[in-house]
Amino acid sequence: MRIDGRQSNDLRPVKVTPNILKYAVGSALIELGNTQVLCAVSLDNHAAPHLVGTGRGWVTAEYDMLPCSSNQRKPRDRTKSGIPGRSAEIQRLIGRSLRSVVEMESLGERTFFVDCDVIQADGGTRTAAITGSCIALGLAMKKLVEMNQMGRVFLKDYVAATSVGIVEGLPALDLSYIEDSQAEVDMNVVMDGAGGLIEIQGTAETKSFTRQQMDDLLNLAALGIRKLIEIQKEILGIEIRSKPEA
Amino acid sequence: MRIDGRQSNDLRPVKVTPNILKYAVGSALIELGNTQVLCAVSLDNHAAPHLVGTGRGWVTAEYDMLPCSSNQRKPRDRTKSGIPGRSAEIQRLIGRSLRSVVEMESLGERTFFVDCDVIQADGGTRTAAITGSCIALGLAMKKLVEMNQMGRVFLKDYVAATSVGIVEGLPALDLSYIEDSQAEVDMNVVMDGAGGLIEIQGTAETKSFTRQQMDDLLNLAALGIRKLIEIQKEILGIEIRSKPEA
Amino acid sequence: MRIDGRQSNDLRPVKVTPNILKYAVGSALIELGNTQVLCAVSLDNHAAPHLVGTGRGWVTAEYDMLPCSSNQRKPRDRTKSGIPGRSAEIQRLIGRSLRSVVEMESLGERTFFVDCDVIQADGGTRTAAITGSCIALGLAMKKLVEMNQMGRVFLKDYVAATSVGIVEGLPALDLSYIEDSQAEVDMNVVMDGAGGLIEIQGTAETKSFTRQQMDDLLNLAALGIRKLIEIQKEILGIEIRSKPEA
Amino acid sequence: MRIDGRQSNDLRPVKVTPNILKYAVGSALIELGNTQVLCAVSLDNHAAPHLVGTGRGWVTAEYDMLPCSSNQRKPRDRTKSGIPGRSAEIQRLIGRSLRSVVEMESLGERTFFVDCDVIQADGGTRTAAITGSCIALGLAMKKLVEMNQMGRVFLKDYVAATSVGIVEGLPALDLSYIEDSQAEVDMNVVMDGAGGLIEIQGTAETKSFTRQQMDDLLNLAALGIRKLIEIQKEILGIEIRSKPEA
Amino acid sequence: MRIDGRQSNDLRPVKVTPNILKYAVGSALIELGNTQVLCAVSLDNHAAPHLVGTGRGWVTAEYDMLPCSSNQRKPRDRTKSGIPGRSAEIQRLIGRSLRSVVEMESLGERTFFVDCDVIQADGGTRTAAITGSCIALGLAMKKLVEMNQMGRVFLKDYVAATSVGIVEGLPALDLSYIEDSQAEVDMNVVMDGAGGLIEIQGTAETKSFTRQQMDDLLNLAALGIRKLIEIQKEILGIEIRSKPEA
Amino acid sequence: MRIDGRQSNDLRPVKVTPNILKYAVGSALIELGNTQVLCAVSLDNHAAPHLVGTGRGWVTAEYDMLPCSSNQRKPRDRTKSGIPGRSAEIQRLIGRSLRSVVEMESLGERTFFVDCDVIQADGGTRTAAITGSCIALGLAMKKLVEMNQMGRVFLKDYVAATSVGIVEGLPALDLSYIEDSQAEVDMNVVMDGAGGLIEIQGTAETKSFTRQQMDDLLNLAALGIRKLIEIQKEILGIEIRSKPEA
Repeated sequence: MRIDGRQSNDLRPVKVTPNILKYAVGSALIELGNTQVLCAVSLDNHAAPHLVGTGRGWVTAEYDMLPCSSNQRKPRDRTKSGIPGRSAEIQRLIGRSLRSVVEMESLGERTFFVDCDVIQADGGTRTAAITGSCIALGLAMKKLVEMNQMGRVFLKDYVAATSVGIVEGLPALDLSYIEDSQAEVDMNVVMDGAGGLIEIQGTAETKSFTRQQMDDLLNLAALGIRKLIEIQKEILGIEIRSKPEA
Repeated sequence: MRIDGRQSNDLRPVKVTPNILKYAVGSALIELGNTQVLCAVSLDNHAAPHLVGTGRGWVTAEYDMLPCSSNQRKPRDRTKSGIPGRSAEIQRLIGRSLRSVVEMESLGERTFFVDCDVIQADGGTRTAAITGSCIALGLAMKKLVEMNQMGRVFLKDYVAATSVGIVEGLPALDLSYIEDSQAEVDMNVVMDGAGGLIEIQGTAETKSFTRQQMDDLLNLAALGIRKLIEIQKEILGIEIRSKPEA
Repeated sequence: MRIDGRQSNDLRPVKVTPNILKYAVGSALIELGNTQVLCAVSLDNHAAPHLVGTGRGWVTAEYDMLPCSSNQRKPRDRTKSGIPGRSAEIQRLIGRSLRSVVEMESLGERTFFVDCDVIQADGGTRTAAITGSCIALGLAMKKLVEMNQMGRVFLKDYVAATSVGIVEGLPALDLSYIEDSQAEVDMNVVMDGAGGLIEIQGTAETKSFTRQQMDDLLNLAALGIRKLIEIQKEILGIEIRSKPEA
Repeated sequence: MRIDGRQSNDLRPVKVTPNILKYAVGSALIELGNTQVLCAVSLDNHAAPHLVGTGRGWVTAEYDMLPCSSNQRKPRDRTKSGIPGRSAEIQRLIGRSLRSVVEMESLGERTFFVDCDVIQADGGTRTAAITGSCIALGLAMKKLVEMNQMGRVFLKDYVAATSVGIVEGLPALDLSYIEDSQAEVDMNVVMDGAGGLIEIQGTAETKSFTRQQMDDLLNLAALGIRKLIEIQKEILGIEIRSKPEA
Repeated sequence: MRIDGRQSNDLRPVKVTPNILKYAVGSALIELGNTQVLCAVSLDNHAAPHLVGTGRGWVTAEYDMLPCSSNQRKPRDRTKSGIPGRSAEIQRLIGRSLRSVVEMESLGERTFFVDCDVIQADGGTRTAAITGSCIALGLAMKKLVEMNQMGRVFLKDYVAATSVGIVEGLPALDLSYIEDSQAEVDMNVVMDGAGGLIEIQGTAETKSFTRQQMDDLLNLAALGIRKLIEIQKEILGIEIRSKPEA
Repeated sequence: MRIDGRQSNDLRPVKVTPNILKYAVGSALIELGNTQVLCAVSLDNHAAPHLVGTGRGWVTAEYDMLPCSSNQRKPRDRTKSGIPGRSAEIQRLIGRSLRSVVEMESLGERTFFVDCDVIQADGGTRTAAITGSCIALGLAMKKLVEMNQMGRVFLKDYVAATSVGIVEGLPALDLSYIEDSQAEVDMNVVMDGAGGLIEIQGTAETKSFTRQQMDDLLNLAALGIRKLIEIQKEILGIEIRSKPEA
């Protein structure tokens, strides 16, 4: 039994509010328990600087937390110079994850900006951002198709993410902040709809972990991600040619 | 008749969701039509740098817009150096307005941070931020009283704000973005519950204005602010000794 | 009787030294009592970035204070990142005020930079900057006409500014620093030669103010600005088609 | 057979030059083929800011590349504001890896700075930095013991890292730059002397990967890291109580 | 005959206006032909950071140019990050020069800030800044003596500076901007009242120079500096124990 | 006899390792005693911004120190905003010195970047950087000639530099850090192969110096530079048309 009564393999309650913003092309507010992330997609009809002249598109992400999103007020980034390391690391992860399922060569010289702003932080904000962004991006593409600005939804697959970890010696799925701060091992896993691994980042917080422990964690993650992708499918309601697991 | 069917002296529909955040001491999401501002208050148990040793408290505000809050994606401030002029100007205005109704000498050496984050921008974000912040600050003080961390709610009065302007030659209350962008004169007015003026900022956008026009605009603003303060009173439900108009 | 012996409606002694700089296209050193602001205009033969291709010109202003201009040495902005809020707010005000009297559509794709550097600060530096800049800009345009680089002086009107305030309960014109720091209400007013209002910024410093007090302050401001515009006319010696007050 | 003639499970030639710098407390130049990283340790006799008063020490790392270290000249970070995302991400990884084997509670309120400067970059610079830093840190501690400034070498274990990846469909150990740029999957693995996992970061570059592929990569990584730790042991020549694999 | 009719060994007309600012402890506007530099001294009653606890004082200088001081408008430093190389180099030179004649050990833990702001630039601004700063610093010390905040004027000697150069093959004293831009060799020389060399910075702009040419330039510089120190003595009117030339 | 046993006119042992880097077009590690500077040249096939359209090339230098290069760890520049004054001053000196011997008009619209990174600092890093950069630049040009990207080596002469100073009353050549920190006078001298002066920067650290002392120092510098240029000639092994001393 976990601190909030969940079983080892329980996700927190998931709630997604699609198209919550009026001006973004696509958007979704994703909630996992108390964690809330607002994912919003806008489209820039120019190629990313490194792709000018290639005919290819790009997807890039930004991640930030509202100052009052967590227990301790977090000063705004603008009062420091540059993007802090943690935010930079997270938004690079979100961008890579999304790009792994987008048909970049079909987009044309356009750039999707995906803004992930944490409204409330109770652990797992980066993985919630990935799961929510996939929905927001899908909604954006659907809208562009409706508006005749895109031929079809250029997604090769769904992509979702969750955190797993070893807390008090036991593997657990979808850690809350309190669990995360006590975890011995902390792992973020990103997978696609076909069950393929997109990204895995595991860190020994207090002691090293074994291959067996890693396998247990990956099993939990796969389970959680499968459920999250079910939710994505329901909301987007579109057929995406999922590759079968290799 | 205005572009959205309102009369000259109509506010847009106002909606306030109090205590929308779990970690902030007090918070409120304020909506005026499509404009949405999230106001959140946190408390730092240290004096502001310029007040150390004086026994006095401070209230300071920050204002920012989410990148996808408006029609055109707005790059995050962190990618530039320093706080852009417009944000700096607005957050100084919010801070001054709130401080005008707080009993600073009774707070003790503590600092309230008021974060105003624009979720959606359809005109009047700075005045909505002032109106919403007064509520969030009142809620924060009520909570601190409940938690025995404050003797009573140290507010001398309510404070609220609205924009007014001359659009197509006619005075109008609570401009939407489209009206604001066409306005000949644009004015932000901050008043307290006793009807006293706290701040007035009027700008001739396309041609200068007369004293008569200014009086008309101030009349409209007083009307709108009175209604907003009614809403504040209902939500906060606390007696504040309002000074009678001088 | 005020602290320096002036009547309520007295300006401080005004002195303007036109064309004080050799390299600027137009310049003026304006003094109001101990306040000294150096206003200098330079011309960039390119459109402002947001006006490229429109055939329209632009006027932009910058404001800064020399480190030794005031009682307390002010560190240079360059040692911080970005332009501090107060300077940003002031230079936006100066720019708006000047643009309100310039025929932007006649300038062609050119940009006037107006630099306002405070040599000595004894209150009212922003309003002195506006009054002095109008002169420097007029001188610059006259010189360009002489040099056959401009058809005529593209000013629709004069523009000048002053501060007014309530000090020890009484309205006063053109506040010195000591008065400003004691003022209950502080107001900056910008008007054109036809007596039209361009900008008004009033702030309750210690208590809110009434509509009657605001009217008294505006009357004082109108009086002071009328005198300043007389001085502008004398120095520039040019006919500008002033619009009659509406 | 790989592009440079190596077998799947071959490391590039490894060379370590210990104590290459005169002023650093400990240092090592580590070379893996053409990749060269200079690791240097200095000691600050103050607690890290977040540990003041706890009696605990800290180890922090910085990572940078010399402008001419790679094919394309890399502008110095100082010409931008803030630390770029990639460097921030890497130096956080190096710091975490080192801290996982240091007895922080025994250090006292002291901070070790570990500077990793890439002299030449041919792939695997971050993993080389971890492996080399462990040596430099061990050398620094040995010197402090000699100088009677430390009771013993406060390392719980060795730590080393390598990259692995899937190149042209086949798993490969210790990727060179050319392999890295063609890899379908790219993974950095950090392990301790007892064979425990410290950190694992795997990314699907062009297509997702399976659990089987991940196992193959981890086997290769474990092999390579075992060899690197042999080299560390030889250079440092000290007994460290390695925990047995759990 | 030089471009402006001067002889090889002529300074431009020198004019110094002492105590031109009201708030600075000491100030001087120095003019050499069209070059105008405003030198202002303020006093901070704290030790410089590196001298806390030593009982010693410090003198530091800052140098900047007003945007409209030269032919081409120079953007303000604040719009870039950090102090540009040229300004940093110049203000370090001014600071060193002043410190060479101040009895630092007698000042107590106080810091003099010397602000050198170029109002108009026609060559030789850095050397004019040194000459003018020495006067402003002397005036500041005299005033502090009058106010009983300093025992006596803690200057060991006068210090002044000039530029010399080889223009069209001939040595010339005190170069104007047009001469400076054509010079083959450009040299700034700082000397004290006893004729000792404080600083010499010579640069071959278009071709290298010989020892003989350097001697000719130093002779010219010594002549010019002697005249400038005469002016300093006249204005300050104080006895300073000049060391005899070694 | 000097602190390290050298005579007044002895250089420290000089060692140059040419082409030490794989990716730079030309490189050299220069050592003078414990001082080590890595000089690396890369080529950008674009004109410098101020030379676009002129057909002329440019040579620019950057200078930085590794954090662990000196006794006291030096924080990286990137953690501050902008380039610190000392580094800016030094890299401007290196750039000017190199440009004095390059036939800029023959390069075509190309830019050479010369990176000077101090690996270990024991005094004289800036002069070592100049001497080493001349070698690295010559090697780069030789390689470009071999690769048929340049017609011939476009150097007009060699250029080298050394520091001299007055230590305990006596002139000394090539100061180590300990000597430099005790020097009464400190001078950096740059000369070409024909014995012409390129740059001279002399500073009185504790007391002013005489013309005679300056002559003594220049004689020492000339001697040392002659030796350094011998070494340059040996390594580069190319004929450069040296101008005879004027």
